[in-house]
Amino acid sequence: MEKTLTKNESEQNWEEFFKLDLNEKMDFYEREGKIYDCLFAQQLSKKLLDVLFDIADKLRKITKEKEGADYIASLLSHKRAMLYFVQPSTRTFLSFLNACHIMGMKTSEIRDSSTSSEVKGESHDDTVRTFSSYVDIIIMRHPKPGSAERTAWLLNKTNRPVPVINAGSGKDQHPTQALLDIYTLHRQFNGNIDGKRIVMVGDLKRGRTVRSLSYLMKNYKDISIDFVSPKEFKMERDILDFLKNHNIPYTETEDFASVMPQADAVYMTRIQDEHDNISGESKKVDYSPFYFKEEHLKIIKPSCILLHPLPRRFEIDAQADKDERAVYWRQERNGMWIRAALMAYIFGIEKKIK
Amino acid sequence: MEKTLTKNESEQNWEEFFKLDLNEKMDFYEREGKIYDCLFAQQLSKKLLDVLFDIADKLRKITKEKEGADYIASLLSHKRAMLYFVQPSTRTFLSFLNACHIMGMKTSEIRDSSTSSEVKGESHDDTVRTFSSYVDIIIMRHPKPGSAERTAWLLNKTNRPVPVINAGSGKDQHPTQALLDIYTLHRQFNGNIDGKRIVMVGDLKRGRTVRSLSYLMKNYKDISIDFVSPKEFKMERDILDFLKNHNIPYTETEDFASVMPQADAVYMTRIQDEHDNISGESKKVDYSPFYFKEEHLKIIKPSCILLHPLPRRFEIDAQADKDERAVYWRQERNGMWIRAALMAYIFGIEKKIK
Amino acid sequence: MEKTLTKNESEQNWEEFFKLDLNEKMDFYEREGKIYDCLFAQQLSKKLLDVLFDIADKLRKITKEKEGADYIASLLSHKRAMLYFVQPSTRTFLSFLNACHIMGMKTSEIRDSSTSSEVKGESHDDTVRTFSSYVDIIIMRHPKPGSAERTAWLLNKTNRPVPVINAGSGKDQHPTQALLDIYTLHRQFNGNIDGKRIVMVGDLKRGRTVRSLSYLMKNYKDISIDFVSPKEFKMERDILDFLKNHNIPYTETEDFASVMPQADAVYMTRIQDEHDNISGESKKVDYSPFYFKEEHLKIIKPSCILLHPLPRRFEIDAQADKDERAVYWRQERNGMWIRAALMAYIFGIEKKIK
Repeated sequence: MEKTLTKNESEQNWEEFFKLDLNEKMDFYEREGKIYDCLFAQQLSKKLLDVLFDIADKLRKITKEKEGADYIASLLSHKRAMLYFVQPSTRTFLSFLNACHIMGMKTSEIRDSSTSSEVKGESHDDTVRTFSSYVDIIIMRHPKPGSAERTAWLLNKTNRPVPVINAGSGKDQHPTQALLDIYTLHRQFNGNIDGKRIVMVGDLKRGRTVRSLSYLMKNYKDISIDFVSPKEFKMERDILDFLKNHNIPYTETEDFASVMPQADAVYMTRIQDEHDNISGESKKVDYSPFYFKEEHLKIIKPSCILLHPLPRRFEIDAQADKDERAVYWRQERNGMWIRAALMAYIFGIEKKIK
Repeated sequence: MEKTLTKNESEQNWEEFFKLDLNEKMDFYEREGKIYDCLFAQQLSKKLLDVLFDIADKLRKITKEKEGADYIASLLSHKRAMLYFVQPSTRTFLSFLNACHIMGMKTSEIRDSSTSSEVKGESHDDTVRTFSSYVDIIIMRHPKPGSAERTAWLLNKTNRPVPVINAGSGKDQHPTQALLDIYTLHRQFNGNIDGKRIVMVGDLKRGRTVRSLSYLMKNYKDISIDFVSPKEFKMERDILDFLKNHNIPYTETEDFASVMPQADAVYMTRIQDEHDNISGESKKVDYSPFYFKEEHLKIIKPSCILLHPLPRRFEIDAQADKDERAVYWRQERNGMWIRAALMAYIFGIEKKIK
Repeated sequence: MEKTLTKNESEQNWEEFFKLDLNEKMDFYEREGKIYDCLFAQQLSKKLLDVLFDIADKLRKITKEKEGADYIASLLSHKRAMLYFVQPSTRTFLSFLNACHIMGMKTSEIRDSSTSSEVKGESHDDTVRTFSSYVDIIIMRHPKPGSAERTAWLLNKTNRPVPVINAGSGKDQHPTQALLDIYTLHRQFNGNIDGKRIVMVGDLKRGRTVRSLSYLMKNYKDISIDFVSPKEFKMERDILDFLKNHNIPYTETEDFASVMPQADAVYMTRIQDEHDNISGESKKVDYSPFYFKEEHLKIIKPSCILLHPLPRRFEIDAQADKDERAVYWRQERNGMWIRAALMAYIFGIEKKIK
């Protein structure tokens, strides 16, 4: 398909547009002062976060009773969503799907590109434009960086665009994961993220979640971060520079236990071996010093919370699950609620949720 | 499975029935003077087309407001549809699925025969009869010609039949594609298809859509058709004879540009290489003279419309998409609405749509 | 994953718990005197069966009218179900899915483990716990014996369990199949199963359905059973002992025709060659003496009914389908209704169905 696209002037425009600094193109994905497409963690301003947290909290409360749940499910009953997931994903997929169900939206699924017309030689642009013919919003996961933005860019230039939510586009962005992570901190800290010390552990180099979460820390005061990782997978320079520019103090260490006692939150991640550049690269690294073991429960503070984006392998001992401070299952569930809130916001019905 | 079936008397009956002229068996797929199963483009009489166009237009209008959309979605909320798609299909599948959602129907999907009981050695007859146990309508796409009709025939002989809609059965029939094509002409010509000159371009020999569309032209007055194709893929004799019998003038040419200036509609198609009898057969043909290029926009009339059943490869330059006369995206969307109308009609609730 | 799990104390607890006699652990899967998880055919007491039969009969009656169907679909409109089907299954899957739709539940599907996070190295425990984060009930089919029970056991130990329904766990249990079989006898015998003579035919050794059905006969009076099978696939000793202990007379024979004339119900099964221990084991057996042929319709009583769990291969001649006594298609449909009834019961809304 590349052939057709490179011939086109529009394709060249895209290449140029794509390279722009995020700040320069943010407006293109907004309407009437609100985000229209949710593509980058950078779109999540403090103000927007607070709005979304508030919607999500209300959704949870209202839907506890059947009457409330039925009311909420009536708000977007006239909307149809498309979940276009080219990559395997259970958690993000189910989280979005059930968020749609909470809001009463009807859903269509593509979970495997082999069922798609792309097999008949259709261009990716035509495929997503087809989806937009049938539905009111596209939630999209794709292995290629920039793919969700490309879809939003394309549709915004037609006379019948629909909003696009990026549910993970390769290594670059996964904004709703950042959203659920920060929502979890917000809830667990009773709305006071300011002043907290966050420890991020694991494959920091290739983990999308810790990168986005670091970025979002700019929205809060007096945050400090400890990065704990094997030397092979240290946090990348761009994020460290960003933190410096925003006067957010951080440390880097390989000694996990040393930073545990002061932590207000420990954010664990798994090794991202699917992103190995050289085959077996990850296997050479001893990851075990970066595991959270049952005995560590005695070291962390009584108020410290333990997060993980999941799925996990061995980074957190299953014995820790029973501890009240292990909040990763709640974190998962927060994802469903904050995604429902995001869709309520994008469709402009947040005022009906009170 | 063939073994069991050929032993049966009923199987022999089917073989005989299947060979009957369509006119002789049409009644078998009707109830109370209305179509019950939608299997052939030949079932689409002028009268029925006008009814369906009217329902579809009303559905679009009513669902523009949330209250209207909720009302329409209440009409078939007690019905359950089965989408049984053994062949890869994005467009037709999503179009039907969202049509069901518009009408408020609950849906079950089989999109891949490997998830089916057919792997346990069940006959196709038993499989579809099982589906009919759970749902109120079966929408079916299958690579084998006659497969949808076979299903309808089988179910009509039981004491608990459900309607069957053919969503494409191999090379032979795809009636709802014909329906959306003619609905697109109807809408774009403001209800006046009479007197129009239609140019059909591409692989006319193996394209189901151009065959059905030619057939449906019998319903209108003073139509003329220009067939443009490589000599290898000319329109088949049976359709040409049909046009002669109905006094519909046509021409055949390889010179696309020569017929462009007079065209009221240009219907483009892609090369159907999946139907090659000899491997590589299609690759030997130079298809490029049958492409619609950006410069052709200057040759066609200001009122001429450009259609394509999609997916496309290179038949239409993506640059043409921006032109108002390129209606293939609307054509796609028309498919969803006319399919919703068809289901409303089959379930007899069309009077509630006004 | 095994590695993590065997290290854990909790894992050892499971192994011990799993080995307990069913009677000892039944309570663990109940709440307030009602079943919470539906895992074993042994949970289906006479009293519970009567309650479920009554709900199912009422559901059928009420939903005949649109108003009734809409009312029933409003009862669980606030609930979300997960259908987690790791094994290919059409019938059970569609039956449960449409049962959910009848009750108005929203549904999420996993029909193939390859789309799941298990590919990223997640443990099965974490996967099902994730599902439980998003939905209100898990309906689960898995090839591994005990897998559904394991899921229920795991979730019951968390502070946010959801009910689990076993939709088939390998060779050991498929309680809702037993439920639909007994419901079919109940309906066809107008509520009088007592005193009936049941003939079970085929691969009795490896057929889950005939084992469960034999077990459930303890709930009725004066039942007698004839087991008809090739000598290689006779009913297992444990079931024969169970029948003796409950004073249920039975015979064993290879001569199908000899037991036909007295039968009140003939329950046919297919050869379960997917459970062959030695490759080709099943092929050596001549299964044809255990087929129900068209001519047998003259031998069985006018009141005798013919059942089959489906899918069938050649065990029942398709010619028999037209006979009023062939009830397997109704049996299939009964499955959908009784499963809807089970969910209504588990969610405690049965009093609203009257």
